[in-house]
Amino acid sequence: MTLLFTDREVAAVLDAPGTVDAMRAALLAAYEGRLVAPPRASAPLGGGRMVLTAGHLTGEWYGFRSYDTFGHPEAEQLVVLHDGRTGAVRAVAVGEELGSRRTGGLGGVAADVLARPDATTLGVIGAGGQAWSQVWAVAAVRSLREVTVHCRTPAGRERFAARVRAELGVPARAVSTAAEAVRDRDVVVLATTSATPVLDARDVAPGTHVNTVGFKQHGRTEFGTDLLDAADVLVTDSPTQAAAYDPPMLAARPPYAGRLADLGAVLAGAAAGRASRDDVSVFCSVGLSGTEVFLLDRLVRLAATVVA
Amino acid sequence: MTLLFTDREVAAVLDAPGTVDAMRAALLAAYEGRLVAPPRASAPLGGGRMVLTAGHLTGEWYGFRSYDTFGHPEAEQLVVLHDGRTGAVRAVAVGEELGSRRTGGLGGVAADVLARPDATTLGVIGAGGQAWSQVWAVAAVRSLREVTVHCRTPAGRERFAARVRAELGVPARAVSTAAEAVRDRDVVVLATTSATPVLDARDVAPGTHVNTVGFKQHGRTEFGTDLLDAADVLVTDSPTQAAAYDPPMLAARPPYAGRLADLGAVLAGAAAGRASRDDVSVFCSVGLSGTEVFLLDRLVRLAATVVA
Repeated sequence: MTLLFTDREVAAVLDAPGTVDAMRAALLAAYEGRLVAPPRASAPLGGGRMVLTAGHLTGEWYGFRSYDTFGHPEAEQLVVLHDGRTGAVRAVAVGEELGSRRTGGLGGVAADVLARPDATTLGVIGAGGQAWSQVWAVAAVRSLREVTVHCRTPAGRERFAARVRAELGVPARAVSTAAEAVRDRDVVVLATTSATPVLDARDVAPGTHVNTVGFKQHGRTEFGTDLLDAADVLVTDSPTQAAAYDPPMLAARPPYAGRLADLGAVLAGAAAGRASRDDVSVFCSVGLSGTEVFLLDRLVRLAATVVA
Repeated sequence: MTLLFTDREVAAVLDAPGTVDAMRAALLAAYEGRLVAPPRASAPLGGGRMVLTAGHLTGEWYGFRSYDTFGHPEAEQLVVLHDGRTGAVRAVAVGEELGSRRTGGLGGVAADVLARPDATTLGVIGAGGQAWSQVWAVAAVRSLREVTVHCRTPAGRERFAARVRAELGVPARAVSTAAEAVRDRDVVVLATTSATPVLDARDVAPGTHVNTVGFKQHGRTEFGTDLLDAADVLVTDSPTQAAAYDPPMLAARPPYAGRLADLGAVLAGAAAGRASRDDVSVFCSVGLSGTEVFLLDRLVRLAATVVA
């Protein structure tokens, strides 16, 4: 019997602590070689492509996420979980919530591992769904006392700040410049669709941890090399995927590639994380393949508990 | 709202005439360039691959079928239909029925177009699901008066013959040799997993139409070049896919490639079909990409009618 989850059900079952916990387990599994996460495969369909990112947790499950690049207004993704022993389809999730929470959860793990333990302030540039899921997840790993948000439209940033106050119970302010949003923040989130840098690395205080999201879109370079030059610690959730992009992600090219660490390795204690209170750490999220399926597996387990 | 179809629901809604009709429309759409059907894409997962075959009916829908090559006992396929205007996922089908009926339907179209109009006898080698869906579909396009079936196990062929009698209402006999199964038949179906030829072309009578299924499996060569040499008309549902296999399908290699016609072109009257009562015609099915999604779209429309 195949379970079908919609956005509403995903949102009802997957909270931020559980999502971050699942992504921590996924990153460790990938680092240890138990989670097989190959580069994405795609099929051209005339005007857009159908894309598949697959994963296989050895002995447990396999599956994939599918999405397309047509750019339709209500485009929905699909995540599919197969039982690793029988091959049966255990669950399908349709919509945006699972993927969005997945990406947030990866950012939550990065912040948990790399931000200062006593971090309490967060500044976010961008006010869309990706920005939200980052703040949502970081709030699960640090006791935030204030969030500042900037995006291009005053209405957008006011709405975002109101949502932070209402749903996360954290004081939040909309601010009119990016510099103001990130100044003296313990954690910074970059989650825009900007094709040009929205951040000047000189505005980032010593000791800050930065999460950047969404390299995927072509031409999306919301930060420049100044941020990478400023980083004492540079991490991604998949060095392999970061390098496989064409062109590769900025942090996966020389001279940065040599010091780009795997977040899973940092989690496992096999790569260095923050060494001092003044280190600037930067996480470049690519979206490790297989993590959506990992999260769907977790969702199925949690849903069974809720129903039981 | 996404509709989820299981095998039971697919079987309840998709009858043979409707399936053959949908596949006829799909083949014509592909021939006319309205159905975009790229080669399959796949992701290696360690011990197996996740495979995606996609399709896009311009202005109407896009989607894909997914399956894997792990060889698990209860492996299920998935077919996904996106609305071509909004991108929303309209329907998901889980299981084997849709794909099996799709392949049967393509064979039904081939038999309808290429078998003699007054064909009444059918011989089948193989007694599995693919063999069944071929006979099921051919019975929808010709008034069959007798089916002969051969497979390796007596129990398997007796069971198949009984099913033909019960479900199709056609007299059927299990026979102990392949030669006996195909001798003096108007239509022959080859649907085995044999790695060596199961048929001697000398046993195929003049005027016979042959449907062969399932080149996909590696090393699956249930017929030899003698059958291709005997064919006056040689057709496939996708010359592009047939040539894209590695190695290419037998009929897509020299000296056969030059006379391998597109079934869609034959349907459209742009390529020659049977020219005389004594022509031997051979259809080599590869499973045109996008046809599963085409059939799911048809299923959604039919299901709406049934409910309304």
